[in-house]
Amino acid sequence: MKTISENRCFGGVQGVYSHASSATGTDMTFGLFLPEEAEHGPVPVLWYLSGLTCTHENAMVKAGAQGWAAEHGIALVFPDTSPRGEGVADDEAYDLGQGAGFYIDATEEPWAPHFKMWTYVADELPKIVTANFAVDEDRQAITGHSMGGHGALTLAMALPGRFRSVSAFAPICNPTNSDWGRKQFAAYWGDESKWGPHDATLLMQGPGFDGPILIDTGTDDQFGDKLGTEAFAAACAAKRQEATIRLQKGYDHSYFFVSTFMEDHIAFHADALYGG
Amino acid sequence: MKTISENRCFGGVQGVYSHASSATGTDMTFGLFLPEEAEHGPVPVLWYLSGLTCTHENAMVKAGAQGWAAEHGIALVFPDTSPRGEGVADDEAYDLGQGAGFYIDATEEPWAPHFKMWTYVADELPKIVTANFAVDEDRQAITGHSMGGHGALTLAMALPGRFRSVSAFAPICNPTNSDWGRKQFAAYWGDESKWGPHDATLLMQGPGFDGPILIDTGTDDQFGDKLGTEAFAAACAAKRQEATIRLQKGYDHSYFFVSTFMEDHIAFHADALYGG
Repeated sequence: MKTISENRCFGGVQGVYSHASSATGTDMTFGLFLPEEAEHGPVPVLWYLSGLTCTHENAMVKAGAQGWAAEHGIALVFPDTSPRGEGVADDEAYDLGQGAGFYIDATEEPWAPHFKMWTYVADELPKIVTANFAVDEDRQAITGHSMGGHGALTLAMALPGRFRSVSAFAPICNPTNSDWGRKQFAAYWGDESKWGPHDATLLMQGPGFDGPILIDTGTDDQFGDKLGTEAFAAACAAKRQEATIRLQKGYDHSYFFVSTFMEDHIAFHADALYGG
Repeated sequence: MKTISENRCFGGVQGVYSHASSATGTDMTFGLFLPEEAEHGPVPVLWYLSGLTCTHENAMVKAGAQGWAAEHGIALVFPDTSPRGEGVADDEAYDLGQGAGFYIDATEEPWAPHFKMWTYVADELPKIVTANFAVDEDRQAITGHSMGGHGALTLAMALPGRFRSVSAFAPICNPTNSDWGRKQFAAYWGDESKWGPHDATLLMQGPGFDGPILIDTGTDDQFGDKLGTEAFAAACAAKRQEATIRLQKGYDHSYFFVSTFMEDHIAFHADALYGG
């Protein structure tokens, strides 16, 4: 593992690291914030999965998360959203290929060789983070924005017991019924019969999540028709899932929206990570 | 004036606007955050001047200022750091030309036609902001980062009565004695005999500032030898200036440093803007 940068930040350290990934067959870069408490022992960790077009960096510099994480003594991990580099397939569209891994393992060409983001964020990166840094694998929570909200919700439900709480900012909740989902699943997985259970609404109709869920989505989200918020809310209601789904008046899809509600989300996760 | 974007943010609005500038002879772009209170009447305003290489955007997305400004009901203005566009002189170096206006009015070619950033931030933009938005020209404060800290300190001292308080993050305090200053003053103003009084340390040895000053600079600032912190601190001490100058252990020159201490700076300005 290689240290790209480390900056003092809110009493802790905001680091950027890269490593050779066996999941993607590429070098992968991630951001990790460690609060001051990590100097004395393992701390709880909140995963932040980013949205379309993002790298590990966007949320790290724009989401305003470190201050609240420092206040609660929580580490933050910011994975990249896809493999990158020479020999990695790409597409001209912003919503396919590099920057658009959708947190699934591709089986179709030309994506299959490197686009294994599910294995990367579900298996490989957690092992790397817990092996190299003072984070407590028994106290994990997960959040994300847009495509990363889809990733957070699907990881949380597909890996029972891994995360104590899950939240999301303007998540893609029903990708099998959205332009943000059908296009990518078709490209990465082929015809619909082969699509995996990576749809938060379908997972909520199945296992649900054994813990609290918090979702914020803006009423003026310019991509609101792609998110499937209503379908997920209906599935939560039908499941009697412990969940708070808030529509925030006047907010859009930007990081100005994300940063506004970051304090609430980190406090929500802190309750779960330190409680029980 | 043209609206580039407006995003709901911490209950207020983060806008980006452009206008034809008579000072620079170009179109200029600026960011403006208005807290919710501005819907009901003029609010106090804090100017944020950015550092080398920045546009209006960097601090707007990375400094984490809007949340604290919203808490205190304060507007934020984020001006650009230089004129830009076709026909505007530039230099390959990151610290001269576009992105490096140094908040002074150039008199030398090729800079003189457009590089009038002093007139722009001291005269023109304040008139535009107060004429078009609910900000209170009688309650202004100013801050900045690096080159923008130089701008903030020099504006505050050269315009007595304009600002109730001034703060800065890792400011260039003594540009006439630094590689960040001598090079640019020589380019923009010609030989040293023509340099204006735009040096915070020299201004502190002269008029000083009629109000409180707060400065934070990291002990691990990679540009520490260019900042002149010690000279400015000595000038403040000699002047018996009301000032708090803090060296923050382990912090560098980045926005991770700026965002860490933003809460303190906005609280400091709120005391001045709402007090007295």
